[in-house]
Amino acid sequence: MEMWNDIMRSLSRAKYYRLSRLPTRSERDSSMPTLIPPRSILRSHCPPLRVGVHSRQFPHSLRFLSASSTSTPNDSNRFLRYGSKAAKYSAFTCFSAVLGLSVVVGGVFIHDAFTYSNRHIDRVPVSPLALHPECGGPKNLPVASVLVGDEDDGVPVAVKDKPRLVIVGGGWGAVSALQAIHPGDYHVTVVSPDTFTTFTPLLPSAAVGTVSVRSLVESLRKIIARLHGQLINGRAVDLVMTDRLLEIETVSTSGERHNLYLPYDKLVIAVGSVSSTHGVPGLEHCFQLKTVADAQSIRRRILDNFEIASLPSTSEEERKRLLSFVVCGGGPTGVETAAEIYDLCQEDIINYFPKLCRKDVSIHVVQSREHILNTYSEAISKFAEDKFQRDDVELVTSARVREVHPDHVVYTTRDPQTGEIAEHTIPTNFVLWSTGIAMNPFTARVSSLLPNQVHKKAIEVDAHLRVKGAPLGDVYAIGDCTTIETSVVSHLLELVEEADRNQDGKIDFDEWEIMVKRIKKKIPMAASHLKKVRALFDLYDSDADNKLNLNELAVLLQEIGNKITALPATAQVASQQGKYLGHKLHLLAAKRDTLLANDLSASTDEAVSEPFNYRHLGSLAYIGNAAVFELGKLSFMGGLAAMYAWRSIYWSEQVSMRTRALLMIDWIVRGVWGRDLSRL
Amino acid sequence: MEMWNDIMRSLSRAKYYRLSRLPTRSERDSSMPTLIPPRSILRSHCPPLRVGVHSRQFPHSLRFLSASSTSTPNDSNRFLRYGSKAAKYSAFTCFSAVLGLSVVVGGVFIHDAFTYSNRHIDRVPVSPLALHPECGGPKNLPVASVLVGDEDDGVPVAVKDKPRLVIVGGGWGAVSALQAIHPGDYHVTVVSPDTFTTFTPLLPSAAVGTVSVRSLVESLRKIIARLHGQLINGRAVDLVMTDRLLEIETVSTSGERHNLYLPYDKLVIAVGSVSSTHGVPGLEHCFQLKTVADAQSIRRRILDNFEIASLPSTSEEERKRLLSFVVCGGGPTGVETAAEIYDLCQEDIINYFPKLCRKDVSIHVVQSREHILNTYSEAISKFAEDKFQRDDVELVTSARVREVHPDHVVYTTRDPQTGEIAEHTIPTNFVLWSTGIAMNPFTARVSSLLPNQVHKKAIEVDAHLRVKGAPLGDVYAIGDCTTIETSVVSHLLELVEEADRNQDGKIDFDEWEIMVKRIKKKIPMAASHLKKVRALFDLYDSDADNKLNLNELAVLLQEIGNKITALPATAQVASQQGKYLGHKLHLLAAKRDTLLANDLSASTDEAVSEPFNYRHLGSLAYIGNAAVFELGKLSFMGGLAAMYAWRSIYWSEQVSMRTRALLMIDWIVRGVWGRDLSRL
Repeated sequence: MEMWNDIMRSLSRAKYYRLSRLPTRSERDSSMPTLIPPRSILRSHCPPLRVGVHSRQFPHSLRFLSASSTSTPNDSNRFLRYGSKAAKYSAFTCFSAVLGLSVVVGGVFIHDAFTYSNRHIDRVPVSPLALHPECGGPKNLPVASVLVGDEDDGVPVAVKDKPRLVIVGGGWGAVSALQAIHPGDYHVTVVSPDTFTTFTPLLPSAAVGTVSVRSLVESLRKIIARLHGQLINGRAVDLVMTDRLLEIETVSTSGERHNLYLPYDKLVIAVGSVSSTHGVPGLEHCFQLKTVADAQSIRRRILDNFEIASLPSTSEEERKRLLSFVVCGGGPTGVETAAEIYDLCQEDIINYFPKLCRKDVSIHVVQSREHILNTYSEAISKFAEDKFQRDDVELVTSARVREVHPDHVVYTTRDPQTGEIAEHTIPTNFVLWSTGIAMNPFTARVSSLLPNQVHKKAIEVDAHLRVKGAPLGDVYAIGDCTTIETSVVSHLLELVEEADRNQDGKIDFDEWEIMVKRIKKKIPMAASHLKKVRALFDLYDSDADNKLNLNELAVLLQEIGNKITALPATAQVASQQGKYLGHKLHLLAAKRDTLLANDLSASTDEAVSEPFNYRHLGSLAYIGNAAVFELGKLSFMGGLAAMYAWRSIYWSEQVSMRTRALLMIDWIVRGVWGRDLSRL
Repeated sequence: MEMWNDIMRSLSRAKYYRLSRLPTRSERDSSMPTLIPPRSILRSHCPPLRVGVHSRQFPHSLRFLSASSTSTPNDSNRFLRYGSKAAKYSAFTCFSAVLGLSVVVGGVFIHDAFTYSNRHIDRVPVSPLALHPECGGPKNLPVASVLVGDEDDGVPVAVKDKPRLVIVGGGWGAVSALQAIHPGDYHVTVVSPDTFTTFTPLLPSAAVGTVSVRSLVESLRKIIARLHGQLINGRAVDLVMTDRLLEIETVSTSGERHNLYLPYDKLVIAVGSVSSTHGVPGLEHCFQLKTVADAQSIRRRILDNFEIASLPSTSEEERKRLLSFVVCGGGPTGVETAAEIYDLCQEDIINYFPKLCRKDVSIHVVQSREHILNTYSEAISKFAEDKFQRDDVELVTSARVREVHPDHVVYTTRDPQTGEIAEHTIPTNFVLWSTGIAMNPFTARVSSLLPNQVHKKAIEVDAHLRVKGAPLGDVYAIGDCTTIETSVVSHLLELVEEADRNQDGKIDFDEWEIMVKRIKKKIPMAASHLKKVRALFDLYDSDADNKLNLNELAVLLQEIGNKITALPATAQVASQQGKYLGHKLHLLAAKRDTLLANDLSASTDEAVSEPFNYRHLGSLAYIGNAAVFELGKLSFMGGLAAMYAWRSIYWSEQVSMRTRALLMIDWIVRGVWGRDLSRL
């Protein structure tokens, strides 16, 4: 208590402290010293502090600072008064910082001390069926009708008997769905070859070590613990829709494959996609950036290149090749990776490798369109291109990659005047390919099982995200592996039946208005093309009889369908679909008894929920100590402030507080000590 | 300012606050919420707080707590007074914590904002010899006499012309030496196949994810930046001592090997060791725990085992095999790994995997001696054994591992009465082998070059850590790859020459006293066996002529030499040797001109420094929410408090503030969110 009183007294006595007073040695030592930047760094950055401070906590000190620079002897009283106050509060702040950190760290360690558990487990109730599953299904494989964890203590008994919801995949779609379901709604099982979910938008950062890959992943087991769900670490390979069995392939430690059936009542396919090759030869020499493993191998390769480039045995030509980084694709992933590589060179390589290694670096972005970030507004493209130009990042636009070799990339450009095609070569030891998507084997298998699935790259689902052709309400699909049907004309007969009130086989304007409402409900993506109801009616009423016959209608609906663009394969779409589906599944579970009583089981989805409607919330990209945003119709771009905004958005999108904490720590660690240059 | 005054006023008004008052919502929200444990956790652990708090900041609150439990109505005034004070200061503390964190995080981010550099590099001065090295040496390889980074701006010109110090290796010895050298002493080059140094004592923690491997490594480039040193990422393969050339093998990205010569003036060999196989067949099925890569593969295997064990297709027998973890070796590494695996099961597996997976876990420690931790005191062994018994960790002592198979381990025990040997089998999918050491190929090559090197497992060095047989003062060796000579008799003639004052070929007692001093100086490890000077003299003076003749002396010195035990291959020895050598190298550099002027170049080591003298500072080991210490003659063992002491010691031993911060964060993250169960 004495100590406290002393401190309080000294705080109020602290009249003539220098404003820049740092905590005394003992104060500093009692804190967690690691988070305080070294004194020398603080000092060297002191002058810009006046500009950089946005905190509301220092208004007086700032006023004091500007006052002091223009002070006259007459001001000296006010000067002293302000000074003493500023000193008092800055001393108080320093002390608070130290004390606060100590208290928090102390508190966490005390909590930590109670996490060492001594629980003993003597007996675990397990159903005999879980230990010795019966065989069945078309291939006579073991059917996992009861799982070993089903009767664990802590799992509510009721969960075991709930409808079995099986979610295949562990990406954005699956996790968003899992987060929207309520505990006790279903007996939840997740099937995934990875045991974790990845925050994919920050993979370019992880690829150069700005953040650690561990900060981007969250264990699926931790996510499903809330739902008392279970994880099966395996790969879905086949589906028996008539028996509601999912076939899963698991791999033993010795590499043997064991297949088994997992029964489901509702199945959600969220397996994502694989990269498409676009038929360019040599893509096996390229890196991709879809998974944590990709980010790890990119990081290893980049550091390898710099290490080998700094060896005395490396020739000049070879050094330039090793330090040439080629990114094929000017979309957000490509642009962000190029920007992160530039950052790595500017902030770390330059400090710890021979300067020659920094000088010989060249970064190339090869883009097939005229501009990079071509899905963004023109202003944003321009801003990014200007930034790259200042940074000496070479932009090759309107170019096509022809071949990738182990040691060089060949691309072609067409002369805008003559139309002549020229071939160019970049020697390189690093090529990133950020391409379109293709079906993974399970998606392809599901698609092949259903005769009405004709899409080449994805499973077609209806507006309720039900797989088209599968038993209604049994199988859903979300995310990159799906595309929502855009064909309106395929619903023609159904629509006419619903709208043709007078049953004359033709649609008059009143009936057309009803039909438009039905179309908007069935296929919300068509809504924006159905705004001018009257004009459309008149336009397609070719015989001007004020009625649309079936032929005229078919043409109309066909053309509207053609105008709809499919949703992009982005995290945002998958996440919204997952959330939508999870919410719907929850409603279905909550209203199950009512629905059964009213015999609505055939069209339950329509009964509880509107069709899925995508709301584009905006796009953003990091372009190297600057960032660009497109939020609705607003574009926003800028330097460090935008970068922090970009970080904030990604930070808030994290799946758990754990990854949030880890990310913030990663950013702080990079700021204080730079990136980790160890090649693990 | 108004805000501040309000807060100060409210702090002094806070008379009747509950002691356990938590920060208000707005206070909490303005802090970094991620580091504060959830409210529910805090609450559930509140009662034990009274026991667990060691901080000096709460003495009054504690006194208040104990007062309250015995209070009478008469105490009510004091109660209130204490209460108001406690409330005031706890409110103040909470507020400080929030404010402090905000200020620190804000400060770090402001600093961070200024780390985005825009430096452009136009021209880098590089010697033509660095770009096109001349060939030379016995194998006519490129000789890297100038490195590409030698003429960088920022590198003092003088460094380039300093004696060339080449350090081979990047472990404890190398890094300790690097930290003891002063900038400008030498032109420093480090040759290492890894680009980082590893904090090896925490590898068992990293193997189960208690800490992250990234927190145990520090980039060698960052360590040598202080010395303006350079790193060559390659493997030393040969040595030409006459030309002072080190042959290095580097590997290009395509896997080709390029060899080159690196000239040196002083060479330090600190390459460590490889594991010895002890001739047990099947060791290729075992894990070892010497490197970060080992820790990573162990972690992957452990999580694999649990994932596969929880699959519905896994049989009961196979599940038990997958969850059986065998550790061969009851030394600190083995014991700590067993303890960490137990922790993982108790704190994380139990929460997120089916309970059956926790129940079926068995951990086995197979030790050849009668007790685990047999180099520690008996009390410590006993404490650790009792702890393991409580934890159901099976200890198999006095047992020898006969064979390791992919799916089981075979060991034998001898019946103490009958002497009969029995064979036992443990089915398992995880075997850790923590064995003795053997030479790595470079050590073996150096040893083979020098005819007087006869040791089988290491390079023999003299007490000044100079490689025996190499040109004096050119080649040093430290750490696991070395052993300090213990033979005293080999110095017999030299010692007699120095001590035999009357030149009669015999040593009387006065001369013996001189000789003892000389021996202690030459071979400090013999000192403890030379304490009873008179008794030794009398004992070995077999003809009782009060003089020792050469034969008698030879027997005496031989037996003293036999009593000396070699230093263990531990981080502590390597680190002390590195520090000693670095300091000596600094002295040699600082006094170079003086030494040259006095023509002392032949025996410079003796001129500037005493021989190396190892001081054992103690041993410690973690045994699962408890730890044991041996500091000098004191033993100390205990639960959580000891565990925190164990952490503190390792924390203070870290090579950089960065790894210190990362380690502390890892421990906090484990405390709050548990270990990461993602198998990357």
